[in-house]
Amino acid sequence: MSHPFFKKHYALLERAVETAKERGYWSAYPEMPSPKVYGEGAAERGKAAFDACLNRPFEIDHPGAETYHGPRCGQETSPYGFALKIDYPKPSPEEIFPALEAARKEWSKAGPDVWAGVCLEILARLNERSFEIAHAVMHTTGQAFMMAFQAGGPHAQDRGLEAVAYAWDLLRDIPRKARWEKPQGKHEPLVMEKRYRVVPRGVGLVIGCCTFPTWNGYPGLFASLATGNAVLVKPHPGAILPLAISVKVAREVIREAGFDPNVVMLATHDPGERLPSQLALRPEVKLIDFTGSSVNGEWLERNAIQARVFTEKAGVNQILVDGTDNLKGMAANIAFSLSLYTGQMCTAPQNIYIPENGIDTPEGHLSFDEVAAAIGQALEKLLGPVERAVEILGAVQNYGVLERIGAAREIGKSEGRVIVDSVALTHPAYPGARVHTPLLVRLDAGQEEIYSKEWFGPIAFLVATKDTAHSLEIAGRMVCRHGALTLSLYSTDDTVIERAVERAEETGVALSINLTSSVYVNQSAAFSDYHGTGANPAANAALTDAAFVAGRFTVAQHRYHV
Amino acid sequence: MSHPFFKKHYALLERAVETAKERGYWSAYPEMPSPKVYGEGAAERGKAAFDACLNRPFEIDHPGAETYHGPRCGQETSPYGFALKIDYPKPSPEEIFPALEAARKEWSKAGPDVWAGVCLEILARLNERSFEIAHAVMHTTGQAFMMAFQAGGPHAQDRGLEAVAYAWDLLRDIPRKARWEKPQGKHEPLVMEKRYRVVPRGVGLVIGCCTFPTWNGYPGLFASLATGNAVLVKPHPGAILPLAISVKVAREVIREAGFDPNVVMLATHDPGERLPSQLALRPEVKLIDFTGSSVNGEWLERNAIQARVFTEKAGVNQILVDGTDNLKGMAANIAFSLSLYTGQMCTAPQNIYIPENGIDTPEGHLSFDEVAAAIGQALEKLLGPVERAVEILGAVQNYGVLERIGAAREIGKSEGRVIVDSVALTHPAYPGARVHTPLLVRLDAGQEEIYSKEWFGPIAFLVATKDTAHSLEIAGRMVCRHGALTLSLYSTDDTVIERAVERAEETGVALSINLTSSVYVNQSAAFSDYHGTGANPAANAALTDAAFVAGRFTVAQHRYHV
Repeated sequence: MSHPFFKKHYALLERAVETAKERGYWSAYPEMPSPKVYGEGAAERGKAAFDACLNRPFEIDHPGAETYHGPRCGQETSPYGFALKIDYPKPSPEEIFPALEAARKEWSKAGPDVWAGVCLEILARLNERSFEIAHAVMHTTGQAFMMAFQAGGPHAQDRGLEAVAYAWDLLRDIPRKARWEKPQGKHEPLVMEKRYRVVPRGVGLVIGCCTFPTWNGYPGLFASLATGNAVLVKPHPGAILPLAISVKVAREVIREAGFDPNVVMLATHDPGERLPSQLALRPEVKLIDFTGSSVNGEWLERNAIQARVFTEKAGVNQILVDGTDNLKGMAANIAFSLSLYTGQMCTAPQNIYIPENGIDTPEGHLSFDEVAAAIGQALEKLLGPVERAVEILGAVQNYGVLERIGAAREIGKSEGRVIVDSVALTHPAYPGARVHTPLLVRLDAGQEEIYSKEWFGPIAFLVATKDTAHSLEIAGRMVCRHGALTLSLYSTDDTVIERAVERAEETGVALSINLTSSVYVNQSAAFSDYHGTGANPAANAALTDAAFVAGRFTVAQHRYHV
Repeated sequence: MSHPFFKKHYALLERAVETAKERGYWSAYPEMPSPKVYGEGAAERGKAAFDACLNRPFEIDHPGAETYHGPRCGQETSPYGFALKIDYPKPSPEEIFPALEAARKEWSKAGPDVWAGVCLEILARLNERSFEIAHAVMHTTGQAFMMAFQAGGPHAQDRGLEAVAYAWDLLRDIPRKARWEKPQGKHEPLVMEKRYRVVPRGVGLVIGCCTFPTWNGYPGLFASLATGNAVLVKPHPGAILPLAISVKVAREVIREAGFDPNVVMLATHDPGERLPSQLALRPEVKLIDFTGSSVNGEWLERNAIQARVFTEKAGVNQILVDGTDNLKGMAANIAFSLSLYTGQMCTAPQNIYIPENGIDTPEGHLSFDEVAAAIGQALEKLLGPVERAVEILGAVQNYGVLERIGAAREIGKSEGRVIVDSVALTHPAYPGARVHTPLLVRLDAGQEEIYSKEWFGPIAFLVATKDTAHSLEIAGRMVCRHGALTLSLYSTDDTVIERAVERAEETGVALSINLTSSVYVNQSAAFSDYHGTGANPAANAALTDAAFVAGRFTVAQHRYHV
């Protein structure tokens, strides 16, 4: 008898497994926030649900009591200029871990179909709450609404489903039992029955980030859950709400399915508290999914040796400009990539290498400065109307980004040249929002110590190189040493393209070639694009492939004669 | 156009993939060293080939020159009482790594079918040389001939094939390209072509052991090779020859397939040299497969952080005696398990828990001493005729084992009771062979500090426990703290069996129940039994499952509009 949730979602799961092997376009959860798709009034109800979260304790029956009466935390402020004033339960590790351990006993025995069914029901209900989660994402990360809806809702759900699909596909290849019959020549064969059980590793810890709490958080959450582990979700103190809602939804479904809801728990802390490292070293924690800084990620990789650690860290994404047959398309595409969510994407480009002697285009040979100017003009055009600008830029998540813009501007003035300055815009609807346009700074190739680190935010360096071979050499070295998730190339020369492909493959970075329309290098689509490779310092794993799920369970067997 | 080696072995590969998912009995390489299978004269030719290796430099065109003229090493001595007097090339890391790096460039681009085809051709040729390898295994490890042939030859080859099957099965799910077509409502769809390339991690290092150099070495060797990596094989200084022959065969096939043979290389050292840790920390080494001591394995796990490390380490295997309906069968089975290869198997039992008040049997209730005596008598019966004894026991690999027997005997005399003493036997054919029978010592449950460590060799402790619940409690704790690959239970009580299964699953140990005929707890069959789980300290990985191969490659992609 298969579980009702498994039956309900089986067709979707099969489709997800197939699509991940074909890697064409597919999305299980519609990305358009339209009443035709999500129903009349869904948008309004979602907004109301978000509003109802504000200025009060977050309600979650955690870790076991009907409502939580212990210590609380929560200092989230919207990058659009107001404090959320939500406070969250803040159970101690001593309350959390016994509850997780108790809950995981039954859950760990439920088996692959139940794990997948429950995960898919959670995803379905998260999808229904996409508007609410969109507002939660918008007002913690600073993403504009459309992006918060798409990346924080359906695209994140797709990434979660992808993890479930990979997990279930591996798990179904492990039989529950086998008859082992070894011939013995003239004698009777030796016959044994063997039983195999998938044994989850224990507790998975998901350490969320403040820019894409759900998109980066769901893969680990669902990979661990779909392989039968309990999961402790530890959001970034600046972006708790999207994951808190997600945990609440997960707990509801898990309870409905007949399991202890403490299979998924929430761990919260305020900025500056050292909870994450404390949690990460707990012996119960056998899996860690982390998105954040290289310092913290590498610390986990080296120190949390009791766990399998999956990290996505900092990197330096790059664009190589060798030539183009569509200058306007190129400039517009680059401008959009730099502007989208104010450059606060782990996939956003930072360094743009342009030969110092310029490039060939249909408009003739253009100098470095002319190429730079084209990008600058495209930025101005894109972000001219402030109503459009704020819907692309969103808001700056934290003051660190603003400080970085200031520091880069100073460097631009003293050691390079500011091509386009970053300016603050006033959001028509949110006057207190931190809205800032991208900064473009010209540097020379020799100033590697500046551009070889990640300048997270709307900061781009146009780097003058000797020629494209030089650009490629620098780009390859950057990826190897400092990591990168994306690389973008503009070229009409097949030899250059071939060499860039080769270098990208060697260094394990996703390459986009000649993007001049409405696909951007920043975008990574579930079921089709691998996000990260695990082959350079930006990440030690890809989202999602077999390696992302295979280490999350073990198989125990017993055998006896029959 | 598929590669001829891939075509040649495709049916076998498909069968291996299927069988690994069904996990019934199957062996690709016949285990009987019979002329009917291996051909008339094969045994004699194998022996002659082995003899021809002795007393001379090992010929291998390594690392690039036709014959190697640099420094050499080799101090192998047969546990049957003679020095092999083979010396091996001993290239320095500075000679090895550039050669590996150069060779892996083309190999890494060959793709999954070529990797699999080449691996399967290597395995086919290793199979043809099973007699030669059997003698090499026998005279380095001390295994008796039949075991050396089976475990060192066909069974090891099966384990290698299993790794290739898992690798290829994962790799074939990654398409080489995809068309991504995203609908845009009324507008033309966005269309991209995406290309995916499997990018191997780099160099895999295989660190062999002195007891099962091929059986424990092939899984890592073939898992890394079948995922496109180059492999450096570093045998234990006491058992170089079996892996040196294997490397030589691999190089021949790789060359024939049109690749640089330095895709697989051999690193040798004499006892006491610190080469392994030096090799393990090289930045080129991205994968390490290790079989050996817990100290060395844990050092690798903590320090070789540039690599994915797969370890099989020490453990304490255990037998729980609760009751039986076949006392003679049980005693004979246990006696054989203790005797086989003089207890020098990572799966051999060490601690045998028997309730101090005895157990129920068809012969009535038997006291602890009567059960112990039954096992002792079975040992005496089994090993009485010396001709048979030496074919079961083989010889003791190294003096460390002999010292351990001595130390355990002293403990038995002073702190427990020697039930059956270990005696030295004279091998009819090899008077200098180190042949020793098992030592059985009685201990009390409270003497945990003695029996909780691994006493590698023919040393078994019969531990008197309060009752079976107590036995189970101790056994579970042992597995969690000290690791174990096998657990064996004798019981006629379904409740006890159920609890043992549960405990075994929780602690990740393979459980065998009521083995009273000719399957032994020590045995682990490719395609059916998982060897290790990765869930307790005895190993951080299983041989072989998806997790064993998934981390050995990454996927790089590029995309462009069409």
